[in-house]
Amino acid sequence: MSADFMRQAIALSIENVRSGRGGPFAALVVKDGAVIASGANQVTSLNDPTAHAEIVAIRQACRALGHFQLTGCDLYTTCEPCPMCLGAIYWARPDRVFYGNTKADAAAIGFDDSFIYDQLPLSQDRRKIPLVPLLREEALEAFREWERKEDKIRY
Amino acid sequence: MSADFMRQAIALSIENVRSGRGGPFAALVVKDGAVIASGANQVTSLNDPTAHAEIVAIRQACRALGHFQLTGCDLYTTCEPCPMCLGAIYWARPDRVFYGNTKADAAAIGFDDSFIYDQLPLSQDRRKIPLVPLLREEALEAFREWERKEDKIRY
Repeated sequence: MSADFMRQAIALSIENVRSGRGGPFAALVVKDGAVIASGANQVTSLNDPTAHAEIVAIRQACRALGHFQLTGCDLYTTCEPCPMCLGAIYWARPDRVFYGNTKADAAAIGFDDSFIYDQLPLSQDRRKIPLVPLLREEALEAFREWERKEDKIRY
Repeated sequence: MSADFMRQAIALSIENVRSGRGGPFAALVVKDGAVIASGANQVTSLNDPTAHAEIVAIRQACRALGHFQLTGCDLYTTCEPCPMCLGAIYWARPDRVFYGNTKADAAAIGFDDSFIYDQLPLSQDRRKIPLVPLLREEALEAFREWERKEDKIRY
């Protein structure tokens, strides 16, 4: 039952704040009616800027399933995913994502991801973190190596 | 010297293909003229859809520095970052990002991230992976708990 899974995630997010492990965010991955992975934000306790709840839960779920995709799974997250987590969700491919708090709610308590979306329309050299092209011709050699490989696993 | 660092990353990406660990992508984090972390794509060998080269290198660099931000660091990646990695870069906050291959080059060998960007303008219920709001009022309790906390670490 989807409301029950979200309540479990919310309880985990509150516990995460109380324990001091990180921000007020948690996530669960559910498959065939059972929780197969859970995660909470651990950015500050692990010194890992990628340890958002969704990423932690997705990684754990994939380990549990022995696959790099989450076909047939639902993700429950206590907050609307940030761009990084949304990207991870698209690579992991769960069937659906349920979320509790909105991006606006998160921004109101100091977790504002709109600065990332605001950067995307800017040219790469004008962004706060500039993206600078370098040695494309040499880098293409790795792509040619990939194309020559016979046992490619695509994802 | 920035070209040398990119060449190191390119060599690592070629080795990653030859060893069968994952796709043709690698990344380095450089601080004060020294490589402090490196990573290569390990999505298929680790069953981890978040194990893109940039994420692996960012996590390792943050562990090495004992901090969740990469101020004063440059990231060298052999390919223009996907939306997930771009989000991770904005959370990690290195000073600059140098990249070799372009998104178009990656798409040409079967690693196309444009399907993610294409989803963003769509309403959440019309996306390939729908985002469904659920129990916002209950989820807000975790945010209130965070606001009550006195030793908040922001990131």
